[in-house]
Amino acid sequence: MTFSRVDVARSLLGDCEYRPVDVFEAWAPVNIALCKYWGKRDAALNLPVNDSLSVALPDKGTRTRVTRLQGESKDIVFLNDQPVSEADGFYQKVVAHLNLFRLDRGDRFRIDTVNNIATAAGLASSASGFAALTRATAGVQGFNLDGKALSILARVGSGSACRSVFDGFVRWHKGEAVDGMDSCAAPLSQVWPGLRLGVLTLTGAAKKVGSREGMARTVETTPLYSAWPAQAEADIAILEQAIVDRDFELLGVTAEHNAMTMHATMIASWPPLLYWEPESVAVMQKVWQLRKDGVPVYLTMDAGPNVKLLFESPVEDSIRQVFPDVEVVKLFP
Amino acid sequence: MTFSRVDVARSLLGDCEYRPVDVFEAWAPVNIALCKYWGKRDAALNLPVNDSLSVALPDKGTRTRVTRLQGESKDIVFLNDQPVSEADGFYQKVVAHLNLFRLDRGDRFRIDTVNNIATAAGLASSASGFAALTRATAGVQGFNLDGKALSILARVGSGSACRSVFDGFVRWHKGEAVDGMDSCAAPLSQVWPGLRLGVLTLTGAAKKVGSREGMARTVETTPLYSAWPAQAEADIAILEQAIVDRDFELLGVTAEHNAMTMHATMIASWPPLLYWEPESVAVMQKVWQLRKDGVPVYLTMDAGPNVKLLFESPVEDSIRQVFPDVEVVKLFP
Repeated sequence: MTFSRVDVARSLLGDCEYRPVDVFEAWAPVNIALCKYWGKRDAALNLPVNDSLSVALPDKGTRTRVTRLQGESKDIVFLNDQPVSEADGFYQKVVAHLNLFRLDRGDRFRIDTVNNIATAAGLASSASGFAALTRATAGVQGFNLDGKALSILARVGSGSACRSVFDGFVRWHKGEAVDGMDSCAAPLSQVWPGLRLGVLTLTGAAKKVGSREGMARTVETTPLYSAWPAQAEADIAILEQAIVDRDFELLGVTAEHNAMTMHATMIASWPPLLYWEPESVAVMQKVWQLRKDGVPVYLTMDAGPNVKLLFESPVEDSIRQVFPDVEVVKLFP
Repeated sequence: MTFSRVDVARSLLGDCEYRPVDVFEAWAPVNIALCKYWGKRDAALNLPVNDSLSVALPDKGTRTRVTRLQGESKDIVFLNDQPVSEADGFYQKVVAHLNLFRLDRGDRFRIDTVNNIATAAGLASSASGFAALTRATAGVQGFNLDGKALSILARVGSGSACRSVFDGFVRWHKGEAVDGMDSCAAPLSQVWPGLRLGVLTLTGAAKKVGSREGMARTVETTPLYSAWPAQAEADIAILEQAIVDRDFELLGVTAEHNAMTMHATMIASWPPLLYWEPESVAVMQKVWQLRKDGVPVYLTMDAGPNVKLLFESPVEDSIRQVFPDVEVVKLFP
């Protein structure tokens, strides 16, 4: 028995009271995974092979306004104040997501979605985008949903969007059910005011293979992937303990090792899936040299060439000396 | 029960007739693995976790002359016409290898060993060096050894040296015995006159972690390593078939995937073991672009930053256009 995204939406929204409003606006943050999501057990529902754990960037993300249209036969989509053509893949993804919230009604919407992050920074906007779209569309329909339902609906739009429904540290529980109704994120209670993320934007980023295709290639073609799920589960347990203990070295070691292991599974795919640019390697070498020089800094990377740094506030000056262009993000108030 | 290198030597040489001569000279080629040796099951005897398969470079390697000394209390070692100090690690490794052939006699030797390959080219000279030293020292003692015994003795000096005892395609059978008496190389009968190796020497190669340490770190710290032995065994079977069928695409795909998988196990180690330089990534990207452009070329890399190309003679001009500095090596007469 297989389940579609529409089945998921009916299950979550079918009994919700429909209290439409004219306009609803929502915000969702970008998140950076300390234990990565890499590999789907169900591609249609974005059900992951492993749990993942992220931290939200409080001020970076997506703001989305959904406005109810009257007398229109089609949805209208604006991205960063620019109209998006119906032929665009982004338009089609947004409409497919709106379909989940229309159920059998003929509602049409105008979507205005704005990311305050440069795409080139390697901070994936699809996670914050689908989280904000989910919140805003649920809002415009008047559906009163809890965090779990919002997280599941965001997930079927874009996997890691389920984590962007929450602030702070967030764990995505992979779940076991075939319909994915137990695969959703939940926030951790801890905060870490001294924690910093350093964003380094490389020049000349290359065209990349999308995460969806990249994950599929990895799962299908690299024997090394077989060891990934167990490592991810072990890493999450360590990360949660590091967060409870506010043990930065343990957090950094585990996050960097996890990211490098994910990239290793990509590199061992066929054809090889190398998201790194020459400059990525140069940055990695600088980070490792900094660490040898006694500065506690660790790196993480997603499915792209950019390197993100993890450190604590006391070493910010040392980081800036080596990386003058770094954008430092405070992760907690 | 554990076995030492001396035990191995006694077993192989103890019953050999001692027919000393004054001088003996031997040659051994460098080899490039198409399926890599990565991971030891016994560090003292250099017993590998997996079989490996290489091809010799006919004109690149080491020539070693062993001269019997009279009235000297110590061995003398010259490397590339320069005397090597007793404090040098190289001197000590050579003397430790000579000890195996002295058994309980007081023989002393002068070693003159010359590599005709630049160390910077990333063609490991320890394999050809220990193979040539093994042949020459066995020769100067008059020991009449077959290829298997030479291969085992070369292996205890430096693992992949066991493959450099032979020309052409060579398979190192990992063996099962705890004393390693079944862990030796054997040549394949096939030749491939059109096969070419392109050697690209990067500028500014970094200090690297030695293979011995790198292997140990990988085996101990990366969960992904658990999948490596089975992939290596599968790759060898495919490579042998590709060689029989002279199927270049199958050979190239398998060799590149194997090399990338080995590097993936390194990258997933802790601390991360990245032998690549920024320029390595730039070269990889050029190779993959060439392939997209229809040129059948594949890459392989060892525990260093240099990239080696595999191709067949008809595309040599296309390769030279993209890599003007490539050194092209014909692998078979």
